[in-house]
Amino acid sequence: MRKDLLGIKDLSSREIEVLLETAERFKEVSEREIKKVPTLRGKTIINLFYEPSTRTRTSFEIAAKRMSADTINISASSSSVVKGETLLDTARNLEAMNPDAVVIRHPFPGAPHMIAKEIKASVINGGDGAHEHPSQALSDLLTVKEKKGRIEGLLIVIAGDIAHSRVARSNILAFKKMGAVVRVVGPPTLIPYGIEDMGVEVSYDLGEAIKDADVIMMLRIQLERQKGGFFPSLREYSALYGLNLEKLKSARRDVVILHPGPINRGIEIAPEVADGPYSLILNQVTNGLAVRMAIFYHLLGGKE
Amino acid sequence: MRKDLLGIKDLSSREIEVLLETAERFKEVSEREIKKVPTLRGKTIINLFYEPSTRTRTSFEIAAKRMSADTINISASSSSVVKGETLLDTARNLEAMNPDAVVIRHPFPGAPHMIAKEIKASVINGGDGAHEHPSQALSDLLTVKEKKGRIEGLLIVIAGDIAHSRVARSNILAFKKMGAVVRVVGPPTLIPYGIEDMGVEVSYDLGEAIKDADVIMMLRIQLERQKGGFFPSLREYSALYGLNLEKLKSARRDVVILHPGPINRGIEIAPEVADGPYSLILNQVTNGLAVRMAIFYHLLGGKE
Amino acid sequence: MRKDLLGIKDLSSREIEVLLETAERFKEVSEREIKKVPTLRGKTIINLFYEPSTRTRTSFEIAAKRMSADTINISASSSSVVKGETLLDTARNLEAMNPDAVVIRHPFPGAPHMIAKEIKASVINGGDGAHEHPSQALSDLLTVKEKKGRIEGLLIVIAGDIAHSRVARSNILAFKKMGAVVRVVGPPTLIPYGIEDMGVEVSYDLGEAIKDADVIMMLRIQLERQKGGFFPSLREYSALYGLNLEKLKSARRDVVILHPGPINRGIEIAPEVADGPYSLILNQVTNGLAVRMAIFYHLLGGKE
Repeated sequence: MRKDLLGIKDLSSREIEVLLETAERFKEVSEREIKKVPTLRGKTIINLFYEPSTRTRTSFEIAAKRMSADTINISASSSSVVKGETLLDTARNLEAMNPDAVVIRHPFPGAPHMIAKEIKASVINGGDGAHEHPSQALSDLLTVKEKKGRIEGLLIVIAGDIAHSRVARSNILAFKKMGAVVRVVGPPTLIPYGIEDMGVEVSYDLGEAIKDADVIMMLRIQLERQKGGFFPSLREYSALYGLNLEKLKSARRDVVILHPGPINRGIEIAPEVADGPYSLILNQVTNGLAVRMAIFYHLLGGKE
Repeated sequence: MRKDLLGIKDLSSREIEVLLETAERFKEVSEREIKKVPTLRGKTIINLFYEPSTRTRTSFEIAAKRMSADTINISASSSSVVKGETLLDTARNLEAMNPDAVVIRHPFPGAPHMIAKEIKASVINGGDGAHEHPSQALSDLLTVKEKKGRIEGLLIVIAGDIAHSRVARSNILAFKKMGAVVRVVGPPTLIPYGIEDMGVEVSYDLGEAIKDADVIMMLRIQLERQKGGFFPSLREYSALYGLNLEKLKSARRDVVILHPGPINRGIEIAPEVADGPYSLILNQVTNGLAVRMAIFYHLLGGKE
Repeated sequence: MRKDLLGIKDLSSREIEVLLETAERFKEVSEREIKKVPTLRGKTIINLFYEPSTRTRTSFEIAAKRMSADTINISASSSSVVKGETLLDTARNLEAMNPDAVVIRHPFPGAPHMIAKEIKASVINGGDGAHEHPSQALSDLLTVKEKKGRIEGLLIVIAGDIAHSRVARSNILAFKKMGAVVRVVGPPTLIPYGIEDMGVEVSYDLGEAIKDADVIMMLRIQLERQKGGFFPSLREYSALYGLNLEKLKSARRDVVILHPGPINRGIEIAPEVADGPYSLILNQVTNGLAVRMAIFYHLLGGKE
């Protein structure tokens, strides 16, 4: 298997299938009374997070611990970053302590790729700027596959702030690789120019866009975007691009709804939608853990 | 056994006795050369702390590790709270990763109870606002029982900021349940109106109040209360309600002194008192660890 | 063996030799497929850090975990320090939970020594103000010994901010104990008055000082020193006291270069020097991990 998991871009559809199959098997571990397998005993996994994160860091950490690895958390605030060390020097220093994997989240696109070239340890991209978030996209694939039985031929609508979203980017790549049709929808200011080149359909009308969707993936609207002038007000954003029961009426009856979280209730998604029966938001979290176990398994366990 | 430990209020005196007996047995584990039992192997325990804490978080974490559980720390500053996620959504997301227990400290009274209703994992209240702090009260019971041989019939004086103290509240409930007499003492501004309804005696004179006490429990005065106008100055507070050797002269010779920590030396308690032979402050810490092991044992281990 | 490791000052040259020999053996553990030995199973090690640190804390934590100890991290920001507890009370409270070792980093010189007298657990100085940083000096000794085959008789030049550096102080003591000659060099404002009493040569000219050196150890210049008026500008500091290829021309061909990190590229050390073949900066990190395993082994494992 490969050394690193940097982005969906690098993965073949066959590799994705293998990762999803492994993840399906690992789900069972988290349902046992004793949630522990010895697979990664004696391995050291470092979570190097330059942005705050609960869910992603916790998911990687629990995944590692249930596989018996040793985990080390480093967050930017406590790190040498404060002292002005370059990212590469931090990485080389960590490498000198022989970790087996470094999970990195960083605000700069490409940061994990730069590190991966420099160190022998496996590097896993836990989110790099607006670039990629591959473990999230794999969770989402697994979640859809579980419910729909397949990915191929489905219509996936991704709605909201496409321009600033690594989740959107990784999911566009992932679903297209697996044979789905992808449509993005959002206000023109939040749809990046030239997005059609990624092979997606573009819409600016949420009600229209979701009519024939098999899957609707709502993106988190970052509240600070409003200050950037990307939309006039949260109220207007919510009225036009928030998913509520009214808008859902135009969707297929078997549509399923995803959101990478954390959700802004009442802004991009109404509480009744987030908590409704078609919502797979918590399945994404459960599957995220299994996917991260699968990633560790293939990058680290496969060496044996 | 029950799923959650939310407050002393919910516990029967029999349940308290069982927890204390279990804690007494677990004390021995921390005195071994190899301080480790396999009881919770493969269990995942999350410490979700929305308020800063060293002693409580560390005590739960060491307890969990000595029982071989996997532990995950989440503190408010690094958490999704920053991103505006609701507490309930955070809890549901954690639940989706199948933890066995969530220890929660939160500034809002009732926060752990709200979560407990929503998730399958055991919820342990690590302190919720001015409401309850049950593991602290259990430590204090154990500490008194060890030294006095019993709780029933003792006179317990709790002194200081009764109004804002979850420790006071849980201890009043705990000691009364076990048959002790409880008296609270402090400045009128820091004694809540209607406290007599909890079945306690009230006094405003520390010297008088401690004369026949078997146990004096001093509470930490939070220095920021002065700004709230609850007392005129720290000097005056200390003169009237600080426990020093002079005031102790009026107490029984076999009185014992407790304080939940962290202590303000020279304010609510004089150094000679805190470090004196009647002080059980460090016993409380040792017993706190054992009590937390007992709590985990009954909530998690009892499932087998 | 001794209970604590507080400073190089307390160690005999024989003790240092034993620690280095043990560290050499432990290096192998970190090169295994399964990087784990059971030596410290059931031991509790607390990292109590009152100053931010990635590399030292991470190194101690990985060392402890590879020896199967349980580790607890406490950082000043989340700790009771916030609540005004004295350092000694914090230490006594931790002690009451029966840890086996406390690694402490603190801005005040002597803080670890004060704690060591009060608690039964082993105390390891992870850096105390400008006083000592013994595990760093032991790493540096090991690094030089590995490359040069010996310490005795070598000329070690330590360059930069001698006055504020615990690394300088511990290394002066360490290298002199092992029979090396030590020379310090830096601007007069950063060389402490009376440093000759430590038995070192003093120079103010980097180019001159390194001519006959076997080892050059560059110290990190803390950028905030400039505000203190210790040197006129970073540019001038770098021109006079930064190590670059030009200045290195005057050095011996077999010179080796150390730096405790994190490095300021282009300030005290040029990138070509830091990354050059004579640089042992990353060896120091690898050896630091092994040295910390050796320290734990002798302080904790030796009890058996």
